[in-house]
Amino acid sequence: MKILSVNAGSSSLKFTLFEFPEKKELINGYFEKIGIGNSFYTIKMNGEKTRRDYDLKDHKEAVKLLVEELINNKIITSLDEIDGIGHRVVQGADRYNESVIITDKVVADIDELSELAPLHNPAHIVGINAFKEYLPNVPMVAVFDTAFHQSMDEISYLYPVPREWYEKYAVRKYGAHGTSHRFVYGEICNYLAKHDLKAITCHIGNGASVTAIDNGKVLDTSMGFTPLAGVMMGTRCGDIDVSMIPYVMKKTGKDIDEILTDLNKKSGLLAVSGISSDNRDVENGAAQGDPKCILAQDMYAQKVANYIAMYNNLLNGADVIILTAGLGENGKIMRSLILDRIQSLGVKIDEAKNDFRGEFRLITTDDSKIPVYVIPTNEELLIASDTYDLVK
Amino acid sequence: MKILSVNAGSSSLKFTLFEFPEKKELINGYFEKIGIGNSFYTIKMNGEKTRRDYDLKDHKEAVKLLVEELINNKIITSLDEIDGIGHRVVQGADRYNESVIITDKVVADIDELSELAPLHNPAHIVGINAFKEYLPNVPMVAVFDTAFHQSMDEISYLYPVPREWYEKYAVRKYGAHGTSHRFVYGEICNYLAKHDLKAITCHIGNGASVTAIDNGKVLDTSMGFTPLAGVMMGTRCGDIDVSMIPYVMKKTGKDIDEILTDLNKKSGLLAVSGISSDNRDVENGAAQGDPKCILAQDMYAQKVANYIAMYNNLLNGADVIILTAGLGENGKIMRSLILDRIQSLGVKIDEAKNDFRGEFRLITTDDSKIPVYVIPTNEELLIASDTYDLVK
Repeated sequence: MKILSVNAGSSSLKFTLFEFPEKKELINGYFEKIGIGNSFYTIKMNGEKTRRDYDLKDHKEAVKLLVEELINNKIITSLDEIDGIGHRVVQGADRYNESVIITDKVVADIDELSELAPLHNPAHIVGINAFKEYLPNVPMVAVFDTAFHQSMDEISYLYPVPREWYEKYAVRKYGAHGTSHRFVYGEICNYLAKHDLKAITCHIGNGASVTAIDNGKVLDTSMGFTPLAGVMMGTRCGDIDVSMIPYVMKKTGKDIDEILTDLNKKSGLLAVSGISSDNRDVENGAAQGDPKCILAQDMYAQKVANYIAMYNNLLNGADVIILTAGLGENGKIMRSLILDRIQSLGVKIDEAKNDFRGEFRLITTDDSKIPVYVIPTNEELLIASDTYDLVK
Repeated sequence: MKILSVNAGSSSLKFTLFEFPEKKELINGYFEKIGIGNSFYTIKMNGEKTRRDYDLKDHKEAVKLLVEELINNKIITSLDEIDGIGHRVVQGADRYNESVIITDKVVADIDELSELAPLHNPAHIVGINAFKEYLPNVPMVAVFDTAFHQSMDEISYLYPVPREWYEKYAVRKYGAHGTSHRFVYGEICNYLAKHDLKAITCHIGNGASVTAIDNGKVLDTSMGFTPLAGVMMGTRCGDIDVSMIPYVMKKTGKDIDEILTDLNKKSGLLAVSGISSDNRDVENGAAQGDPKCILAQDMYAQKVANYIAMYNNLLNGADVIILTAGLGENGKIMRSLILDRIQSLGVKIDEAKNDFRGEFRLITTDDSKIPVYVIPTNEELLIASDTYDLVK
């Protein structure tokens, strides 16, 4: 069976086509700048990447092109061969704790929840409608970024703020990157052939979150009501003291939305390093002795280490720690800085084993009290797998 | 030498008179509702408490009465016998990392820093001026709540937010309860006759903060730019996701100041329990099976435990944990709930030893990996001690 995994943004569309049950990736592609001019797309197949400029006025046109590419590349001969389409959906709130077949009710829910994810949910609906129009007979599945975290108990998801904020306005911890945390947890369970593992999964990319998982259930996660909270990130601040908000508003004359933009787009590694939100630039700066870059790296590592220590206690001792996403998979210096800061947990890095990028590997010594694995995440595959399970 | 320790609020004045070098408390008192009608004061001496109603129109009048009480109670025979007055000052920012003799420059600094502590610093100046007018020849000392935390490094005190917020507007972590953390740290060092201890001090009262101290230096503390951040408290939220602020503003029509009032006055134990900010009420509710009270207790304990675990790692293993302030000294159930949640650190409570209120005691078993002590705090004494050291 051929299953398409889709991630639709407001002006983008990412897809990967898999063959099931083999879970083999056949082709993937990325349409960018849809409807905003200078649009183009890239297709990757058999390790080869092709880029094409093409005037894409909407997502429907991108879907049409996508299918043409599949046919031209002889991946399929007709539309009938696509058996299911899985859509990434950022916010499912407390309505969805697992993936579901997309119905009109599901689309209405995603629309209603747009308030909690104003940049993402409306774009997902555009994507869903584009596929529905062009491929009306293919069953579609919604895979929610928040679903995995719905297993949290209220001690973790409730905030100690006025209760009507939760009861009337749905203010609570939803978390994010759920599909990624769930994927790497599934990988380590399969690898170690144990399904009741206590794990700390660290998705550290441009966005970053840390999750404590016990026997498949999320005990706590670092992101909150939105993906702004938790550890510091490329451009996001993570946890700060809310009281600075009215103070800075008064000092700068900015309104609350402008302040939030600063905290989402101009904070994190970018603010501390003063040069970039990209850890590779910060790493280069640090290597050249730039004290702000050194501080940015150390601060980032410490804040991840803080959450690992907190969650190790919450789990009453983790069986395993997993690093994933951009920095986790490729940032060997950052991995080393983080692990150096959790030595009190008995974690011992093996620097020789740590010298690589982007593979599934153990990076701690044999006598490390908690083994630490790097596991490349693959949200696309998990989206497709959920879709396969629901449509097969 | 007789040293007066003073804590002046906007409509209150607390004092304690000590004999030095014996550090013996001679008398203490509390003037309330100064200048706002129905004012009264209480005096406590030799274990006896007296309350008197008295129309106090300002702090100067309270100071005059205070001295009359000292004379009437035969504590002193004349004003000359007061050798120094120490004032608690909430915010000294990065200008003061230790206590200082109060000069015009110091008063001007406290005034300038009012912006960072609008409820407290102006009241301290009123207090300082009242004593200066009535006792012009007695040297006075300012003891800052923030001074102890000035030993933090920038990795802890800087926020990953736009750098100009720090450089132009002084937004950084200042912490609070510094005098209390420093006091109990001093007590445990003296008791164990070790002065390079790695300690986690938990000041958990109506306000609450947790501090990691290594050899007298603060590595990190849970309160932030203001005392709103960190663990949840009686009516304060502690760490939350800033993103909920604009969302709730939009939903409720409240402005930013109203939201901050909600987070300072209507959150914490009060919001979760739905009944009270006082842990004794919450404890009673929990004992009667009220699920909201049980949740409030567990959530509070978990959030303190989270910080202890985080700081234990930061210290690369603490030598000792200290609980102090209202809940720490008197809340045996809460102490037990917290210690139950840090078992992964090797902490083992001895419930028999834990069954008491308000004393200096060890509450863990002999084989607990980290000993946990309850130590009654005495900020008044430390304020007086600093004053004695500077005026003697």
